[in-house]
Amino acid sequence: MWRDLRPVGRHPDSGGYRRYAWTGADTDCRAWFRDQATARGMTYECDRNGNQWAWLGDPAAGDAVVTGSHLDSVPDGGAFDGPLGVVSSFAAVDELRARGAAPTRPLAVVNFGDEEGARFGLACVGSRLTSGALTPRDAGRLRDADGVSLPQAMERAGHDPQAIGADPERLARIGAFVELHVEQGRALDLTGDPVGVASAIWPHGRWRFDFHGEANHAGTTRLEDRRDPMLTYANTVLAARKRARLAGALATFGKVAVEPNGVNAIPSLVRGWLDSRAADEATLTALVEAVERAARERGDRDGVGVHVERESFTPVVEFQHALRDRVATLLTGDPDRPAPVLPTGAGHDAGILSAAVPTAMLFVRNPTGVSHSPAENAAEDDCLAGVGALTDVLEGLACR
Amino acid sequence: MWRDLRPVGRHPDSGGYRRYAWTGADTDCRAWFRDQATARGMTYECDRNGNQWAWLGDPAAGDAVVTGSHLDSVPDGGAFDGPLGVVSSFAAVDELRARGAAPTRPLAVVNFGDEEGARFGLACVGSRLTSGALTPRDAGRLRDADGVSLPQAMERAGHDPQAIGADPERLARIGAFVELHVEQGRALDLTGDPVGVASAIWPHGRWRFDFHGEANHAGTTRLEDRRDPMLTYANTVLAARKRARLAGALATFGKVAVEPNGVNAIPSLVRGWLDSRAADEATLTALVEAVERAARERGDRDGVGVHVERESFTPVVEFQHALRDRVATLLTGDPDRPAPVLPTGAGHDAGILSAAVPTAMLFVRNPTGVSHSPAENAAEDDCLAGVGALTDVLEGLACR
Repeated sequence: MWRDLRPVGRHPDSGGYRRYAWTGADTDCRAWFRDQATARGMTYECDRNGNQWAWLGDPAAGDAVVTGSHLDSVPDGGAFDGPLGVVSSFAAVDELRARGAAPTRPLAVVNFGDEEGARFGLACVGSRLTSGALTPRDAGRLRDADGVSLPQAMERAGHDPQAIGADPERLARIGAFVELHVEQGRALDLTGDPVGVASAIWPHGRWRFDFHGEANHAGTTRLEDRRDPMLTYANTVLAARKRARLAGALATFGKVAVEPNGVNAIPSLVRGWLDSRAADEATLTALVEAVERAARERGDRDGVGVHVERESFTPVVEFQHALRDRVATLLTGDPDRPAPVLPTGAGHDAGILSAAVPTAMLFVRNPTGVSHSPAENAAEDDCLAGVGALTDVLEGLACR
Repeated sequence: MWRDLRPVGRHPDSGGYRRYAWTGADTDCRAWFRDQATARGMTYECDRNGNQWAWLGDPAAGDAVVTGSHLDSVPDGGAFDGPLGVVSSFAAVDELRARGAAPTRPLAVVNFGDEEGARFGLACVGSRLTSGALTPRDAGRLRDADGVSLPQAMERAGHDPQAIGADPERLARIGAFVELHVEQGRALDLTGDPVGVASAIWPHGRWRFDFHGEANHAGTTRLEDRRDPMLTYANTVLAARKRARLAGALATFGKVAVEPNGVNAIPSLVRGWLDSRAADEATLTALVEAVERAARERGDRDGVGVHVERESFTPVVEFQHALRDRVATLLTGDPDRPAPVLPTGAGHDAGILSAAVPTAMLFVRNPTGVSHSPAENAAEDDCLAGVGALTDVLEGLACR
């Protein structure tokens, strides 16, 4: 299975994956999914929002157990983020059969479309559309860097964009959703466990910091006459890191835009985007407020105006405790020694679905913690342990 | 004169000028120059490198006195940088005539092409070609942001690109070149003088700092597991400012490029360009070395590799002392109380020509010091004082 999927959308220069929604690489991944479903005699369907499903048993019967993840990637992403969950799901179906376990509930493998949002800028488009968190109207406004709209891209890839929209009837037929994903941090590496269970997705958000200074000649303007927003930005980057460390949280400036961005010009504007996440919303709010305060204080010294705009915010997602605890127990078979339960800072389709469906996540150990990079990795033994764990969970949920 | 030139190439949104070499706005400025020459009965010519000349007297006679500047602009530049020198030159010709002063040597007004380098990335292309500092071969490699080469742009604007190249015979006919320019700092504002004389152009250069980190997920990577080059960059920006202050010099990071430049991605690479200038080369070298050392020290802490590349370097230009002192005396008429003499951090065509021709510069007071910005300004009285000063200089050099 891995062998067929591995070369699809891999960039020869970076070694990273560029599997963006509704592109050729995505179409190839989707054809692979369909082939896997057919090869197993599973019932294949593509839903109105472009999510792919492979069913064992009657999809209409209800109370289904669903597992899966996504196949698309960030720019130059790794091989595991997404595909590990889909591959492991099919492998778990094989393993269930090898064990002779017969599902008593419908069982499905799913590939959610456009999870990473690399092309249209919004993550989890497939699951958001299905759950109603994204309206067809708002989806129609999404455009890629070339100005192609999401409906246009869908149509070019052979999917009817008129069909998209909330699908509550489909969600009502799901009794439990379990997503397996490579861990994107080092928590399991530090505890020494190959597989863990998610407790929650940290609240997270994006804030745009605009630093307004005064364009001037870099070769002739005295330092004391400058209003250089790059200084305020630089100080804010360091302040954000320090505040995050003190709060036990995360803060990152990974994107910058500068005007006029000339070598010999003091900038008139530096725009930096803060990505911040914390275990709870109070901590996150206090952290961002502290960064904003530091920016304003330094801005006053630099003669630079600071404007902060919250561009997005996702509240904490707490996975259903009953399912989470059941999954943690199924992994070890011992209620007194359940598998480790850990939070994550990353968003997932499971986080979107959890508003409508009992949802759980399994994480497979990532020895370096590197993610969204060609260097992302997971040991083969750990991947096999993940398949075993997922099989145990599916057997426990669907076959008893 | 001002009235005709003012609207050309002015952008309605920013109020700044976008007069890039060999564009429509540039063509309009050049037509304006030709009209001014013709209206005064001066002999007009465009030389092989696209520089425009307006002659009083026989261009071939030799030992000419030449004055002028440039008409092109930086992106969203001010109204004075360049045009003030050309307009003042024509006004000084008028004033010479009003005084009844008859030149005994040929006198010319010049508009050097592509001084700012805003379109093709290299400053002073017109004067560099004429002096031989830029070869036609290297000029042929220059391209704008749309991939249009300099020869293509010249050809589209009606200038024969085959003709370009060094013009030593033309330079040999020039006995003195005087460029009037709006000051790009506040030295004259601080001394209280409307007009000053340049002593030297500070040595200056551009260094590209590459900060190599590791791309990773901003939402899941623990702070202590990161190799975030944005931190090293930010610290280097602040270190450069501090070192420049201690050295009495200038250091600016005005241009940045980030990869992958995603909101939720720790960058793999941050590339920042340092523009630095100082009164002498030893100070400049020591300053840049100190910034590089600070970058490496912080890089070691951040797990970030630092690579520094010098992209350009221009040694100090010391204007000829004899001409400089003569000009400073002509401005006041009193050898014991010459006009103020001041250095500048900005490059000019006068700096290029000074290698081949006795050259001087006049600066007109800039009340705010703002330059390369729509807010650039000079008081009308000071501009008139500049015309008077330039007339005095031309009369002293060419009419006695």
